[in-house]
Amino acid sequence: MLINEATITVRYAETDQMGVVYHANYLVWCEIGRTGLIEELGFKYADMEKQGVLSPVINVNMTYLRPAKYGQQVTVKTWIDSYTGVRVTYGYEMHNSLGELCLTGTSEHVCVNAETFRPVKIKKVFPEWHHAYETNKHNG
Amino acid sequence: MLINEATITVRYAETDQMGVVYHANYLVWCEIGRTGLIEELGFKYADMEKQGVLSPVINVNMTYLRPAKYGQQVTVKTWIDSYTGVRVTYGYEMHNSLGELCLTGTSEHVCVNAETFRPVKIKKVFPEWHHAYETNKHNG
Amino acid sequence: MLINEATITVRYAETDQMGVVYHANYLVWCEIGRTGLIEELGFKYADMEKQGVLSPVINVNMTYLRPAKYGQQVTVKTWIDSYTGVRVTYGYEMHNSLGELCLTGTSEHVCVNAETFRPVKIKKVFPEWHHAYETNKHNG
Amino acid sequence: MLINEATITVRYAETDQMGVVYHANYLVWCEIGRTGLIEELGFKYADMEKQGVLSPVINVNMTYLRPAKYGQQVTVKTWIDSYTGVRVTYGYEMHNSLGELCLTGTSEHVCVNAETFRPVKIKKVFPEWHHAYETNKHNG
Repeated sequence: MLINEATITVRYAETDQMGVVYHANYLVWCEIGRTGLIEELGFKYADMEKQGVLSPVINVNMTYLRPAKYGQQVTVKTWIDSYTGVRVTYGYEMHNSLGELCLTGTSEHVCVNAETFRPVKIKKVFPEWHHAYETNKHNG
Repeated sequence: MLINEATITVRYAETDQMGVVYHANYLVWCEIGRTGLIEELGFKYADMEKQGVLSPVINVNMTYLRPAKYGQQVTVKTWIDSYTGVRVTYGYEMHNSLGELCLTGTSEHVCVNAETFRPVKIKKVFPEWHHAYETNKHNG
Repeated sequence: MLINEATITVRYAETDQMGVVYHANYLVWCEIGRTGLIEELGFKYADMEKQGVLSPVINVNMTYLRPAKYGQQVTVKTWIDSYTGVRVTYGYEMHNSLGELCLTGTSEHVCVNAETFRPVKIKKVFPEWHHAYETNKHNG
Repeated sequence: MLINEATITVRYAETDQMGVVYHANYLVWCEIGRTGLIEELGFKYADMEKQGVLSPVINVNMTYLRPAKYGQQVTVKTWIDSYTGVRVTYGYEMHNSLGELCLTGTSEHVCVNAETFRPVKIKKVFPEWHHAYETNKHNG
C-alpha cells in the first residue's frame, strides 16, 4: 500500500476565533493529500478533468482529535483505503509538528462526466488509473 | 423534536471549477444551521464563548447526494440527533430550490474550556442549555 | 444613483484567530452586494454566465477602518461608482450593527468571453445592462 | 531591498466556477509571502502575536492581470514597499508557471494591542523589527 505524505504549513486564513484551524479546512488538506498520492501513482487529477471527467466527493467522515494551530506544520498521510472499480475511498491521518495525531478520516469519490454529472466507470475510462488503484490499495 | 430551517443563498465564492459548491463549504452551512437552531432554543453560541467555553467539532460525516449550484437557494434543516450531557450530535438535511435532497449529515461536538481545551460538562456549566437539549433532542 | 443594501450575518468560518473577520472575506461580501445591486437593476449575474460571458475582477481597493466580529450583522452598501461601457467600478461601504463604518472600497470589473477570457463590450453584448448602468451610475 | 519568493501550488478549493482562482484567495497568498519575508528577516509573525500584538491589514490594493489556474504553480514576490515606523506597506508581484505576470498589489498594516486593538509603535515595541524594516525597505 502506497502512503503519500504531504506537509502543510498552517495558513493564518485557515484559523478561526477559537485560535485553531477551522474544521472545514482539513478537507482542503485532504484534497492536497489526494492530489499528491495521485501524482505518486503517476497521474494528475487536472488531466482527468481535461478529459471531461470529474471526481466529486460523495462522503466525508472526519474525526478531530486535536486542533492544528497557526505556526505549525501538519503532516497529511493519504492512502487508498478501498477501491471497487467505481468508487474510491481514501484514508487520512494528520499529525502536528509534535507528532501528535490531529485527525483521522476518509473520503469517498466517484467519477462522473463533467457535463452530465452521470457516473463513469474508472476501470473503463481510465484503465491505467484502475490498474494503479488496484495495485496500491490497502489490502490490494 | 425541534427542526431549524435556514435558507442559504449560494455564494459565487463557494463554487469551484466543477461549477458546483465546493464540498467543504457545506460544513459552513451546517454551522449556520446549528447557530439558528441554538437561537430557536433561546441561546446564542457567541454568549457561550463570552463565558470562556468553546464547542469544537469532533466528528463530521457528510453524504453528498447532489451538488448545489450558484444561483440556487439551499434549505438547511438542523436538529439535535442525540445528546448525552457531554456530547451533542446534530443532524442535517439540505435541499436545493427544486426540493431535491443534496446532503445528509451529522456533526458531533463537545464543550471545552477556551484556555485549556479541556472538556467541560454542559449539564454542569450551562444547565439551561442542558435542559433545552434534553427536551428538544430526537427521541427526547 | 441606486444604492443596494445587503445585510450579512457574520459566519464563524469568516473569523480568524485575531477574533475578527479575516480581511479577504470582505471581498466575498462585496460580491454579495454587487449581486444584489444587479438584481435591483433587473438582471442576474448567473444569466450573464449562461450566455457565455464572465465578469472577472481586475482591481480591488479596500480600506479597513474597523473590524467586523462574529455575532454582528454588517450592512453592505453597493453602488455603481463609474461605468465606461467596458469597465464598471463598484463602490462599497460596510457598517456594523452599531452603525460604525468598517470598510470603504471599490472593485473594477470587465466582461470577458468565458472560453477565451478576451474582453467583450458590455454596450454591445448586453445593451439593456448597458442602459441600466448608464442610468444608475454615480453622476449618471 | 530584500525580496521574498514563495511558491504556491494552486489548490482546487481556491478555484471558482470561472475555472480560475477566486480573486479573494490571492490575498491569502500575499499573507504567505509576508510571512516568508518576515522569516527571511529573522522573525516570526506568530511570535509577535504571542507578545500580545496583532498586525491587521488596513488597506489592500490588488490589480489582477491574468488569472492563475488549478494545476499551476504561482511565484509570489513580496517586499517592503514603505515603512514609517508605524505603518508598513508590502508590495507583491505574482507570476504563473509560464512566467506571466498575474497580479501586482500592495497591502498596508499597522500593529495593534491584541486586547484593545489600539495602535502600538513598532519602533518602540519591537525595536529589532524596526531596524530590520528600516534596513530592508525599498529605498531603505
